[in-house]
Amino acid sequence: MRISDLDTPALTCDLDIVEHNIATYQRLISEAGLAIRPHIKTHKVPAIAHMQLAAGAIGICCQKVTEAEVFVAAGIKDVLISYNLIGKLKLERLNRLARQADVKVAIDSAYTAQGISAQAAEDGVEVGILIELMMGNRSGVATPQDAVELGRLVTELPGLKLRGLMGYPTGPAPECLGFFDATIKAFRREGLCLDIVSGGGTNSSWEAAPERAVGFTEHRPGTYIYHDWSQVQRNAHVTLEDCALRVICTVVSRPTPDIATIDGGSKTLTNEGFHIAGLEPNRVVEYPAARMIGQNEEHGILDVSACPRKPELGERVTVIPYHACVVTNLHDEVVGVRGGEVEAIWPILARGKVR
Amino acid sequence: MRISDLDTPALTCDLDIVEHNIATYQRLISEAGLAIRPHIKTHKVPAIAHMQLAAGAIGICCQKVTEAEVFVAAGIKDVLISYNLIGKLKLERLNRLARQADVKVAIDSAYTAQGISAQAAEDGVEVGILIELMMGNRSGVATPQDAVELGRLVTELPGLKLRGLMGYPTGPAPECLGFFDATIKAFRREGLCLDIVSGGGTNSSWEAAPERAVGFTEHRPGTYIYHDWSQVQRNAHVTLEDCALRVICTVVSRPTPDIATIDGGSKTLTNEGFHIAGLEPNRVVEYPAARMIGQNEEHGILDVSACPRKPELGERVTVIPYHACVVTNLHDEVVGVRGGEVEAIWPILARGKVR
Repeated sequence: MRISDLDTPALTCDLDIVEHNIATYQRLISEAGLAIRPHIKTHKVPAIAHMQLAAGAIGICCQKVTEAEVFVAAGIKDVLISYNLIGKLKLERLNRLARQADVKVAIDSAYTAQGISAQAAEDGVEVGILIELMMGNRSGVATPQDAVELGRLVTELPGLKLRGLMGYPTGPAPECLGFFDATIKAFRREGLCLDIVSGGGTNSSWEAAPERAVGFTEHRPGTYIYHDWSQVQRNAHVTLEDCALRVICTVVSRPTPDIATIDGGSKTLTNEGFHIAGLEPNRVVEYPAARMIGQNEEHGILDVSACPRKPELGERVTVIPYHACVVTNLHDEVVGVRGGEVEAIWPILARGKVR
Repeated sequence: MRISDLDTPALTCDLDIVEHNIATYQRLISEAGLAIRPHIKTHKVPAIAHMQLAAGAIGICCQKVTEAEVFVAAGIKDVLISYNLIGKLKLERLNRLARQADVKVAIDSAYTAQGISAQAAEDGVEVGILIELMMGNRSGVATPQDAVELGRLVTELPGLKLRGLMGYPTGPAPECLGFFDATIKAFRREGLCLDIVSGGGTNSSWEAAPERAVGFTEHRPGTYIYHDWSQVQRNAHVTLEDCALRVICTVVSRPTPDIATIDGGSKTLTNEGFHIAGLEPNRVVEYPAARMIGQNEEHGILDVSACPRKPELGERVTVIPYHACVVTNLHDEVVGVRGGEVEAIWPILARGKVR
């Protein structure tokens, strides 16, 4: 079966590129002296996580306990849930996983620590804890001193085992590194555990050596597995040829000579990438001069006025999505292709795991 | 089981409001002299479609042949697929449905007509056809004369039965009505079928009487079933009390005194409503002064600086999504609640039907 036999829209990933990306980042991060713990939010597919582990990854990272369930059920034994888990239903699920795998959870508050501790004590399990440092404005403790205080609390609470620190560097790199550096030094002074010091993600993978220098132990890239059009536009290390995730679409309408409407709209591609100054949403491989000027849920509207040849009705085009991670959450399966042939059809088992 | 027993994020719909919205729009559109054919993209749930039919709807509208499969399998006998269907795989599916139900398809090109005709002839079925009029820039024929020519072609091709016209009025109302008016007159002159003249959607439901005057037969509202925060901000007829779809979220981090981070980000709510001048994304019911200033996939970032009381860690909040239709596509189930009690848990069976 070939790509051309798939009905559209079809979510595909090029397996040669996936393998190339795995090898590239495994080498890059290993050479910086760090372990690699891929964030699975980009692909959400256990088979791909196993490819990452086979190449040398030490485990995976995810955000939700229901995602962790999918990957632990697929035989993965080292999981970091980089998210404050709150509420009895989630914590009971967490503790069931803690019996099956080495599961660690990131926290940023005494409230979260006490909740996990109480349920762990009740269920008779021990949960590994990383303290999350605030690198943007969404979550994390704000100062090294806050991290130390929370780390101390974790060592005192039953059912918890302090394992170290984590952060997702969304702010300026020197500030993020500086915060880690100061916190690592404070943890050392206090004798607090630093077995795991975890940073990320894809874009900072090319500057991982300074992370190693301040004491990081591991790096958590996610999007590198597929890359996307956002990264091509923003990261000089990433080219269109590195983009494995491609959505095959069909031209379903040519309402005017300058418009070609495809069957990939926001329900297929999300609407990310619109309204970002200087950046273009989704790229059409065969028509690089086409511009996606609008979307409805089922319509992608391409301005093809600058294309020397215009796409015809019924023609198939290949779209590189702006943001890979959010696109895989919309689809039930991804088709692995190699040289135009369908090699695998993977259910996206961790799709839609909102809890 | 009460709402408070659900793990978060939880997609819920208030059944009293759903019933109220069904009754309101059924009355509104009936009084304008039109039939109602709800677009199911908003809810994607057969049980809700059956509530709409029980209240008097004549059938349903959907965009994809795989959505139509879900609803025909649920016993619905009158389906309009308002989308150009192209390609053998889709057309074989269409023809299987045409044996089970009265299925109509909208088209805007000879190419699409010829494709449907060829497969219908091969499969020995007859498919009902509506000509789509262009009301924005995404699809549809551009002039009454184009509509007549395509209508004539449909009457000549085997396997097709011309049923009338449809359009989704996204442009200025007088222009849309004028285009329909001229096309209806041209169809009458040519003796072309006008059994169905179909307009939509929710926002123009309050001005449906002029549609009747020019010859519409039916109206296709979708979002009215749930309403959403976008409509509250843009449509004077819609209030927050009309919004049935609510996402229950938990405050998972308070990284600064003015920020409350909830466990509903773009994977739960989509990122629609950001970057639209003068409009606010997602509303938090309990904290009307809170502003959602950012989102990542799993984090919704609320600025609570203007709130007299700030939300606490672990507290649950109720989010009215900016755009209901795109949110239901992210979730596997919706919980129907009444007076705080869980009355139904419906799988969103037509979620993710991209083909």
